[in-house]
Amino acid sequence: MNRIYLDNAATTPLDKEVLATMMPYMELHFGNPSAIHSYGRETRAAIEKARKTLAKLLNVSTSEIFFTSGGTESNNTAIRGAVESYKLKHIITSRIEHHCVMHTVEDLEKNNAVNVHYIKLDEKGHFDLDHLNELLGTINERCLVTLMHANNETGNIMDIDRAAEICRSHQAVFHSDTVQTIAHYKFDLQKTPVQFISGSAHKFHGPKGIGFLYIRHDVKIPPLIFGGGQERNMRAGTENVYGIIGLAKAMELAYANFDEHKAHISELKSYLVEQLKEHISDINFNGDYDGESLYTVLNASFPPSAKNDMLLFNLDISGICTSGGSACSSGSNKGSHVLEAMGVDPMRGNIRFSFSKFNTKEEVDSVVAKLKELYPAKIMA
Amino acid sequence: MNRIYLDNAATTPLDKEVLATMMPYMELHFGNPSAIHSYGRETRAAIEKARKTLAKLLNVSTSEIFFTSGGTESNNTAIRGAVESYKLKHIITSRIEHHCVMHTVEDLEKNNAVNVHYIKLDEKGHFDLDHLNELLGTINERCLVTLMHANNETGNIMDIDRAAEICRSHQAVFHSDTVQTIAHYKFDLQKTPVQFISGSAHKFHGPKGIGFLYIRHDVKIPPLIFGGGQERNMRAGTENVYGIIGLAKAMELAYANFDEHKAHISELKSYLVEQLKEHISDINFNGDYDGESLYTVLNASFPPSAKNDMLLFNLDISGICTSGGSACSSGSNKGSHVLEAMGVDPMRGNIRFSFSKFNTKEEVDSVVAKLKELYPAKIMA
Repeated sequence: MNRIYLDNAATTPLDKEVLATMMPYMELHFGNPSAIHSYGRETRAAIEKARKTLAKLLNVSTSEIFFTSGGTESNNTAIRGAVESYKLKHIITSRIEHHCVMHTVEDLEKNNAVNVHYIKLDEKGHFDLDHLNELLGTINERCLVTLMHANNETGNIMDIDRAAEICRSHQAVFHSDTVQTIAHYKFDLQKTPVQFISGSAHKFHGPKGIGFLYIRHDVKIPPLIFGGGQERNMRAGTENVYGIIGLAKAMELAYANFDEHKAHISELKSYLVEQLKEHISDINFNGDYDGESLYTVLNASFPPSAKNDMLLFNLDISGICTSGGSACSSGSNKGSHVLEAMGVDPMRGNIRFSFSKFNTKEEVDSVVAKLKELYPAKIMA
Repeated sequence: MNRIYLDNAATTPLDKEVLATMMPYMELHFGNPSAIHSYGRETRAAIEKARKTLAKLLNVSTSEIFFTSGGTESNNTAIRGAVESYKLKHIITSRIEHHCVMHTVEDLEKNNAVNVHYIKLDEKGHFDLDHLNELLGTINERCLVTLMHANNETGNIMDIDRAAEICRSHQAVFHSDTVQTIAHYKFDLQKTPVQFISGSAHKFHGPKGIGFLYIRHDVKIPPLIFGGGQERNMRAGTENVYGIIGLAKAMELAYANFDEHKAHISELKSYLVEQLKEHISDINFNGDYDGESLYTVLNASFPPSAKNDMLLFNLDISGICTSGGSACSSGSNKGSHVLEAMGVDPMRGNIRFSFSKFNTKEEVDSVVAKLKELYPAKIMA
């Protein structure tokens, strides 16, 4: 069976070109980058070249890029490190963050007596940035603000420049989980005054097990993982050399064809919206799908039906791979905390479709055909 | 130039068979293991198979194995988690631990008011386990004991069964950094009452960026990295699927030819000792090299000489890759904290030779020939 993969927000296939770049470091250049001999110098040079590539694309200095095991570790490091380093007593966040932000914040609340404040959402599920400004004005101490750039379930995208400006005006430390937008949004970090952003290579056709944390030059935090002096004492452990090389290559490829991929994927998303609206009765979309929304993600809301419980399974049986929400929590029985926080009717059936450059219009047609079997057709007026 | 790689305690070349096992998961089976669709189920199944392989070889339950990004993260997780979970106020450790243990302990001492006690070393650099027993008897509270199984610089190997028994008799929590011994020592964890051990795949011809932590079933600690429910809520972040598969395969291969590899490597080590003793005047060895010592590591001590400062560079120029100590600190200017703690004369030149199954007797001959050029020949009596 030909499968249709529309779960690219969970993970993406590794690009063949990326793998080809990684291969020599799996087959030949195996040295420990901390070793001073020739094998070590080869891998050290490759890592620093990768760092340079990434830094250039984000318009930052190489000394502001730290490789980690992934987005989750990056977000943990930033949040925990900022609270410890600045002895912060207040965190402002939202109820729709990824679990790696949410659970870290909750743990800090539990153990370190940090006060957590939740920003309001507007009717489309966007952060109410006026409320952020208000909260920061009320709290008479330096705060950590951690708000995700694009929501992994709905695709809603925040005005990161405005959020960063508000934080700057209140001297708040600003962290943004950018795992969904890295390689899909052109950051210029000289213009966006954010202290921390994070990325995970497997979200943009790079390898799993590797990510990065950007830490602005004027910020100093302790490491999360202690040990050898790797990553300038910020992240101990022998470097995942092929991972780092793959991350940089994936980023480079994304930027080389940025506009073309964006146009292609945006068209697929619009086409799916249009087709669903045309063929499925009482279809709806969660979040600001046709407004400030990441072009890779579409969260569709189907009418109440006895079939909703088995919706993802029915699609899977037909070879269509989608998800109900974040992959990280799809194994659990709990519903989506994001849709719940947005007040979505729990009786409706929700599917997150997430696209990549490898998807096609024909795949969208097949998906719509399958969904037409499951839901009542639209009655033409 | 043909290079001779004798720095296998720093990292090992990835075995071709291991890479072959990883390839399908880089080329085809790319799903996020948390996804419920077919792509996700494929990688989930592969991870659980890998966990089963590892658990069987260590004679533990699959629910006691947690995959991490490497040995450093594993050791950090165990030490920090045990202190937090059991609200421990005392840690017993040594001055010759790897930096990932030492710096984690130091950070806990600094921030959490934990008291650190250092175990004495005997004249060969072994832990004085009678002193451990004494210390545990003196401290009237539950302690964390963290002592490495084999020292990464000297190869000295501890009697882990005896250490574990002493800890058990005092109800201490026992963690052992086993990064150097995994796949080189046959653990039977049903017989060794240790609470935590750690491993790193790249130390035994597996990939970089992946490791594991064994946590005994009756121990409950919090995670170091918070987020999704991966690794049964013990280690958040999308799993490094190929890494996990490579780790298990590398372990399997190591066990399949365990005795053969051990005999081959042991012979190389003995042969190098014999040749150096025969050809170099005033040669010495650090640690219990011909006694309780890991067969993969030999730390040789050369007579004081103006050439000692450039010793590793001179070998490197001739294509011989060795190290002065731990790779993780070789970039820094500091000498070895291990040799210093053992009271080794700082005027002598030290080289750590570390072997793998891929080394040959001819390579040892070449190394000895080069060293003969650098040091005075032994005058025959």
